[in-house]
Amino acid sequence: MDALEDAVSESETLQRLQALLEPEDASSASSAEAINLLLASLDARETARVVCELPTEQQADLLSRLTPEDAVGLLEDLPEVTAIEAVEALSAEDAAAIVHELPSDDQADLIGAMDATAAAAVLAELDEDEAERIAELAAYPEDTAGGLMATEVVALRDIATVETTLRRLRAGATRLRDLDVQYAYVVAKGRRLVGVLRLRDLLVAEEASRLADIMIADPLSISATMPLEELVAFFDEHAFIGVPVVDSEERLVGTVSRRAVDEASEEQASSDYRRSMGVVAEELRSMPTLRRSRMRLAWLSVNIVLNVIAASVIAFYQDTLSQVIALAVFLPMISDMSGCSGNQSVAVSMRELSLGLLRPTEWLRVWSKEAGVGLINGLVLGGLLGTVAAFYAGNLWLGVVVGGALAVNTLVAVLLGGVIPLALKLAKVDPALASSPLLTTVTDMCGFFAALSLATLLLDKLL
Amino acid sequence: MDALEDAVSESETLQRLQALLEPEDASSASSAEAINLLLASLDARETARVVCELPTEQQADLLSRLTPEDAVGLLEDLPEVTAIEAVEALSAEDAAAIVHELPSDDQADLIGAMDATAAAAVLAELDEDEAERIAELAAYPEDTAGGLMATEVVALRDIATVETTLRRLRAGATRLRDLDVQYAYVVAKGRRLVGVLRLRDLLVAEEASRLADIMIADPLSISATMPLEELVAFFDEHAFIGVPVVDSEERLVGTVSRRAVDEASEEQASSDYRRSMGVVAEELRSMPTLRRSRMRLAWLSVNIVLNVIAASVIAFYQDTLSQVIALAVFLPMISDMSGCSGNQSVAVSMRELSLGLLRPTEWLRVWSKEAGVGLINGLVLGGLLGTVAAFYAGNLWLGVVVGGALAVNTLVAVLLGGVIPLALKLAKVDPALASSPLLTTVTDMCGFFAALSLATLLLDKLL
Repeated sequence: MDALEDAVSESETLQRLQALLEPEDASSASSAEAINLLLASLDARETARVVCELPTEQQADLLSRLTPEDAVGLLEDLPEVTAIEAVEALSAEDAAAIVHELPSDDQADLIGAMDATAAAAVLAELDEDEAERIAELAAYPEDTAGGLMATEVVALRDIATVETTLRRLRAGATRLRDLDVQYAYVVAKGRRLVGVLRLRDLLVAEEASRLADIMIADPLSISATMPLEELVAFFDEHAFIGVPVVDSEERLVGTVSRRAVDEASEEQASSDYRRSMGVVAEELRSMPTLRRSRMRLAWLSVNIVLNVIAASVIAFYQDTLSQVIALAVFLPMISDMSGCSGNQSVAVSMRELSLGLLRPTEWLRVWSKEAGVGLINGLVLGGLLGTVAAFYAGNLWLGVVVGGALAVNTLVAVLLGGVIPLALKLAKVDPALASSPLLTTVTDMCGFFAALSLATLLLDKLL
Repeated sequence: MDALEDAVSESETLQRLQALLEPEDASSASSAEAINLLLASLDARETARVVCELPTEQQADLLSRLTPEDAVGLLEDLPEVTAIEAVEALSAEDAAAIVHELPSDDQADLIGAMDATAAAAVLAELDEDEAERIAELAAYPEDTAGGLMATEVVALRDIATVETTLRRLRAGATRLRDLDVQYAYVVAKGRRLVGVLRLRDLLVAEEASRLADIMIADPLSISATMPLEELVAFFDEHAFIGVPVVDSEERLVGTVSRRAVDEASEEQASSDYRRSMGVVAEELRSMPTLRRSRMRLAWLSVNIVLNVIAASVIAFYQDTLSQVIALAVFLPMISDMSGCSGNQSVAVSMRELSLGLLRPTEWLRVWSKEAGVGLINGLVLGGLLGTVAAFYAGNLWLGVVVGGALAVNTLVAVLLGGVIPLALKLAKVDPALASSPLLTTVTDMCGFFAALSLATLLLDKLL
C-alpha cells in the first residue's frame, strides 16, 4: 500500500514539475520559487526518480531556472550519465555558471565526460585561469590520481611559525570553514612538498615552533599518473584519509582522498558485475527505448557469433546425433554445467588478482590448484549426470558418454576459467568484460566435441 | 622475467619463513627478531601471498611469536577468512592479547566471526569491562550501524568553554594524537548527544565561548540498528565523513565513518559479483582442495537439478527432434542467447534498485520499459538466427521456427529478468545469488518449449 501511495504521489510530483516548466510560466520569478519548494520537499532518491523521468531538454530547462548553487545540488542527486547529458543540453553560459560552482575534481570529471565541442564551449565561457586549470585536470585519465584528485588544499610554508599560521588561519576563517579538509601540506620554495600537518595538531603545538619542526617530514606522496589499482593498494597499505599528489617535479598539485578512491573502485566493481552480465554502457530505463536496445544489441551480436561457432561442432556431428537422439537432451546440460564450473574459477581468479594474491603470470600456480578441484567436481558431477543419462536411455554406455564428457569438460573449464582472467590482464583487456563469453564459447565447443566424438567412437554400443 | 624473479624470491622467502618457524628455533629470541626482519622487508601483498601459503597452524605459530602490536599489523594484511582462522588456531591467551590491540570495530568483527566456543574463550581472557564492551558490539549484525561503528570518540560536555576544552585536549595530547578523529561530539548530561564540533574549528573560536554556543546543534545522528543499505543512502545524501550513532535512548554510543560504509558496500558489491558466478563462500586457492571442491559443489548441485528440469522439455519432444535433427544444433543457441538478454535486464534492475531509481513493487514500470527493448531485440536476433537456420537446413520453415522461438523467448527473458530481482527483494532473498539460475532455468524451458512445440505444429513443412 505504501509503495503504491508513493508511486501515486511521485507521478503527481512529476506532473506538477512539468506544469511549472511550461513555457508560459518561463519568465515568472514565482515559478523558480515554486520549483525550489517542490524539489526541497523531495529526498535525493525521489529527486533522482522524478527528474530522470523528464526528457533531457526539460532537465536542462529545470537546471537553467535554478541558481547555479541549487543546480549543483540537483546534479549531485542524479545518476552520472543523466547529469552529463542535462548539462550538455544547456547553453554554454548556463553550463559554465554551474561548472564554476563545482569542486575541482567534479569540474574536471564533468568537462572530461562531456562531448568535446560542448566542453570547449563551456571552457570558453569561464575565466581564463579557471578554464586552464580545469582543462589541465581533465587531461588526466579518469581513473588515475590526477583524475581523482581535488586541487583545494591548504598549503603552508615550512618557515612559518605556529603563531603566524594560527593568526592567518583565523583571518581566513570563512574560507577554511568552507574547505572541508583536515590536513595542511607544508611546502618549501617553489611549492615543493616537504611535510604534512594535521590542522588539529596546531591546537596542541607550542606557538613559537616553526611548521618545519612540528610537521611530519618527508611525507608519502604519489604521482599524478598513479592508476586506480595502485591507489587502492596504497590505501590498503596505509591508513590515510588522503594523500598529497605531486607532479613530475615534486610540486604539490592536489590531494586524493580515500573516499574518492573507494568510490571509484566501488563503481568499478559494480560496473564489472554489470559487464559480466552484458550491460556495457550505463543504461537507465529512463533512456529512450531505441538507444537502450542498441546498447544491448552490441553485446548480444558478439554473443550470437560465438554461439554459432560453438554450435558448428554439433552440426559437424549431426549424423551421430540423429542416431543417438537422447544425446540432444544432455548436450545443453553438459555445456551449461561446465560453463558454471568455469565461471567459478574465473571469479576466484578475479578476486585473487584484485586482492593481490595472484600475479597475471602465475598460470602454473592456478593450474596446480585447480586441477584437484576440477578432477573431484568432474567425477562427482559426471557420475551424477551419467547415472541420470543411463537410466533415461536404459543404456549404460550413454551414461558413460554423458558422464565422461561432463567430467572431462569440467576439468577443462576450471583450468581454462582460472587462467583466462590472467591472460586478458596481460593482454590489457578488461577481464570482467571478456572472460565469461570467451570461456563459455570454448567450454561449449569442448563439451559438444567430447560428448559427440565419444558417442561416435562408441556408436555400436549406443544403438 | 620480473614476475618470474619475484616468484622465485617469494618461494625463497616462504622457505626461510618456514625454517624460522621450525620447532628447534621456537624459543630463541633471535628467531622472533629474524621473523620481524623478514616480514618488514615485504609489502602488504607480498606478506599476504607468503603467509597464505602457510598451513593454518603455522600461521597461528607465526602470530604467537610476534608482539601483539606486530601481530595486528600482520593480520591487517591478510584476507579476512585467513585472519579469522589463524586467530582461532591460537591459544585463547595469545588471541586475547591480539584482540586487545585491535580498534573497537575490528574487535567486534573478529569476535563475531569466530567460532562461538573460541570467541567465548578469548573473551574470558580479557578484562571484564573490555569483554562486555566487545560482546555488546559483536551482538549488532555485521552490516548495521552498530556493527560498523567505532566506539573511540571524543565526547565533550556542552557547558565546557573553549578555553578549558583546549587545556584539557593539550593535557591529553598523546591520547588525542593516537585517536585519528577530526570531530568531537558534544553531549549533555547522561551522554545525550546535543551537538557536533570540528576539532579544527576550535582553532578559530573565541576562548570564552561555551561549546554549546559554537557547536552545530541538533546534529544528524543515526540509530545503531540502521542497515547498510540505508547507511549508503545516508552518505549519498550527506557529504559527511562520519556520523554519530545513538542507542534507543539517544545516548552517544559511537561513530560510523563513511570509510567503513564504503568498504562494507564495496565488499558487498564484489561479493554480489562472485555470487552471480556461483562462488558463494570466501574461497581462496590457498585453502585445502577438498574444502574448495565442496564449497563449489554446493552451488553446482543446485544447478544440475535446475538443468535437469529444463532439459526435461527436450525429452518430452524427443520424437519431433529425431525427425528434425537440425533443430538440435539451434536449441543450445536459443537458450543461451535468451539467457544473455535476460541477464542484461537483471543487471539493469539490480543497478536501478541500488541507485534507488526503482522500488521492488514497480514491476509494471519495468515491464512497460522492457517490452519495447525485448520486442526490438527479439526481432533483430530472431531475424539473424532464423536466416542462419534457413540457409543451414535449406528450409525456410526451419528459419521461421528458430527465429520465432528466439524472438518470443527474448521478450519473455527480458520481461522476466527485469522483475526477478524485484520479486526476490520483496521475498527477502538475495537477488545477486538467485536471479541468474532462476532466470536461465525458466528461459531454457521456455526456449526449448517454443522451438519444439512450434516445430511439432509445422512438422510436415519441416520434413
